[in-house]
Amino acid sequence: MAQKPSIPKGTRDFGPVEMARRNYIFSTISGVFRLFGYSQIETPAMENLSTLLGKYGDEGDKLLFKILNSGDAFAAVDPAMLENSNAVAMKVCEKGLRYDLTVPFARFVVQHQNEIHFPFKRYQIQPVWRADRPQKGRYREFYQCDVDVVGSQSLLYELELVQIVDMVFDRLGINVCIKVNNRKLLAGIAEVAGAADKMVDITVAIDKIDKIGLEAVKEELRGKGLSEESIAVIEPVLLLEGDSEAKIAKMSEVLASSEVGMKGIAEIKELFGLIQSAGIRQKVELDLSLARGLNYYTGAIFEVKALDYEIGSICGGGRYDDLTGIFGLKNVSGVGISFGADRIYDVLLGLDKYPAALGSAPDVLFANMGREALAYVMPVCARLREKGFSVVVFPDESKLGKQFDYATRSGIPFISINADSEAAAGTVNIKNLGQGRQETFAKDDIDAMVAFLRQ
Amino acid sequence: MAQKPSIPKGTRDFGPVEMARRNYIFSTISGVFRLFGYSQIETPAMENLSTLLGKYGDEGDKLLFKILNSGDAFAAVDPAMLENSNAVAMKVCEKGLRYDLTVPFARFVVQHQNEIHFPFKRYQIQPVWRADRPQKGRYREFYQCDVDVVGSQSLLYELELVQIVDMVFDRLGINVCIKVNNRKLLAGIAEVAGAADKMVDITVAIDKIDKIGLEAVKEELRGKGLSEESIAVIEPVLLLEGDSEAKIAKMSEVLASSEVGMKGIAEIKELFGLIQSAGIRQKVELDLSLARGLNYYTGAIFEVKALDYEIGSICGGGRYDDLTGIFGLKNVSGVGISFGADRIYDVLLGLDKYPAALGSAPDVLFANMGREALAYVMPVCARLREKGFSVVVFPDESKLGKQFDYATRSGIPFISINADSEAAAGTVNIKNLGQGRQETFAKDDIDAMVAFLRQ
Repeated sequence: MAQKPSIPKGTRDFGPVEMARRNYIFSTISGVFRLFGYSQIETPAMENLSTLLGKYGDEGDKLLFKILNSGDAFAAVDPAMLENSNAVAMKVCEKGLRYDLTVPFARFVVQHQNEIHFPFKRYQIQPVWRADRPQKGRYREFYQCDVDVVGSQSLLYELELVQIVDMVFDRLGINVCIKVNNRKLLAGIAEVAGAADKMVDITVAIDKIDKIGLEAVKEELRGKGLSEESIAVIEPVLLLEGDSEAKIAKMSEVLASSEVGMKGIAEIKELFGLIQSAGIRQKVELDLSLARGLNYYTGAIFEVKALDYEIGSICGGGRYDDLTGIFGLKNVSGVGISFGADRIYDVLLGLDKYPAALGSAPDVLFANMGREALAYVMPVCARLREKGFSVVVFPDESKLGKQFDYATRSGIPFISINADSEAAAGTVNIKNLGQGRQETFAKDDIDAMVAFLRQ
Repeated sequence: MAQKPSIPKGTRDFGPVEMARRNYIFSTISGVFRLFGYSQIETPAMENLSTLLGKYGDEGDKLLFKILNSGDAFAAVDPAMLENSNAVAMKVCEKGLRYDLTVPFARFVVQHQNEIHFPFKRYQIQPVWRADRPQKGRYREFYQCDVDVVGSQSLLYELELVQIVDMVFDRLGINVCIKVNNRKLLAGIAEVAGAADKMVDITVAIDKIDKIGLEAVKEELRGKGLSEESIAVIEPVLLLEGDSEAKIAKMSEVLASSEVGMKGIAEIKELFGLIQSAGIRQKVELDLSLARGLNYYTGAIFEVKALDYEIGSICGGGRYDDLTGIFGLKNVSGVGISFGADRIYDVLLGLDKYPAALGSAPDVLFANMGREALAYVMPVCARLREKGFSVVVFPDESKLGKQFDYATRSGIPFISINADSEAAAGTVNIKNLGQGRQETFAKDDIDAMVAFLRQ
């Protein structure tokens, strides 16, 4: 009769310890967002399929979870249609689960454009769903954590995102390198090489220089159809050395003849200047191999790597010029980044950087010594809670050993055992289970108890 | 070309102001949960349909949102099957969106029973989805906010839930009446009346006494098939008067011959005794007409009404004895309550009880007076953020009028305008826009700025 319960593959339950860690990550990140004036929004889990389809390419469309219309969904389905699963699906499903937070945000901006003051600074932390093949580190339900500002082309917002990244990872205790690129530089390189259509191939090749060396990269570029002249133009880019300033200086020479390239140079110079004024603590560097979202981003591109832990990028984003165009609102430029909560979770765990007391266990257990003794301690419990302590009372008048055992198993650091004798004396005992140290307090001396609990 | 974007009916976008209010409600509630030692969990939005189906009655099953299997979902559908939409749906959908948090919690407890220490105290705040007909105050996506403890029969947990309700509404500034009933009392009344199968009819009749009067209620009971003898037994219950203590005393007489009834009396006496010891501030009363979840709850039943605002119950719950039995884990008693976030939202709005500064707007706007002046104020912005203030910088070197206008429209209370002259003098101006008051500070005197901003 009874079912063996399970959850759909690629989904997860989060228990108390995982939730405490995840809340720590999300509250750190959203706290920083708020310090920079970003406001939270939420959108529905379900969007109309017309909103979602065609926004993520053919592969993305296949990964959308579709929701069956309620009621008699199949009444209008012609049996002949069954040969085409996709046609039937479109007939019986009008809604789908959101695939990311970007398209719902674009839809939100267009739908609410008359209520919004631009530049509109928003953050959004919600789950998304993808019918991907589940594997290690890839889930069918996972949280995204996006921050964007739309309605301004000011580079101050690129700076602001770098400041946000800097402060978030500083507060989390993770050393990172913030890599910065600009699509206009890549377009410029392709243009001066006379291979404007090969921008992505060239960027991918730049990325391989450290791994396979100059000759192999040139061979690969030849394989992609680039001429020797083109490759000769690109070669100084492949050999680029020094700090970001030196790289920018060299690139200014290479790109001198490209209008878009020099626009990229101007932007990247301005951004690095701003970054210097702002006193960023984490490492920031120009990385021309950054090829993230190239058919989407139009200016700055960001990617953040943890320095002391081997994992893919933990944060990334960039400048886009036409997010809302698909929904009929043109010329709304924006810039945003997304924090990878699952990877940040793993980095903090791997580096042992979670704070010791993340609050998944209560602070004090009051032992249950019978009805009368309970009535005596209840006001003390209430006053400690008012002081912010998590206080639990053992549910039954069990043997003390069992009550101690509950505290230990639950990770509760303090136990307070008060029987009728304490009630008669007007005192309260509290014991630190780890240190074995016990003190006795006057019942009303809450401040002294607080001091003991905080030690 | 461009689509006019919209969201599915019965769903909502939450903008910055609504989110700030919702976060205030959820953080107040979850803060109280943690003070009583409850830990947060989250479960996936999607559950296997085998987990969900049959748990909410036939009507509930119809309201489940089903998710189409990915891939070639219709390949195995026989055309003849199309006449039966439900059969096709079961063939092409394995997953559904959660309908409430109770069944996923039961599934969680059974699935993780070897990792959990009982009594297990958890809270969960997540959206649920129902394919209900949307109407005012009824949505297809809405948050539930549940707190439960499972694995103990101790009445101390009934008390704890009353304490939680008390503290939550105290902190929110809402005066409430916490109504308490016990299913065993209702079963006892039906038993002594010789109409054990009419428990629900009798409870519904008790609920009408204030509205329609004694004779009409008796007439209704006759209509339900109760004998005059039965009605004579029930009459003292209908005429019950006085405070909870007086009601309990009278009920002890009425139920003297019913074992289950007297068990209910013992439980309710014990609970009211505990409530008295614990010093509950909000009103608590015995209400025998409370008929919530009668085919589910086995002991205490709770319902909370706002005293100063007309709306349905804003919180409710009770004791259940076999939550996890459906998944093969027997004899796990639990008790829990659920807070109605949407209604609490409306009550706070109607009573104007939201705190004045809910943090949906930044605290200070630093005007943009050009590149050099910006470099001068950036360290000040950074230090104010470290002090917890939300600080924004105007993105462009626009006319001051436009920058003031942005502050006003965005609800930003302070503006700081610093040009090259301030940089030369080493000072920072801050103006309170509401009061028109302005002060000048030494650039490094962050403490004085903080004091000014906190006024």
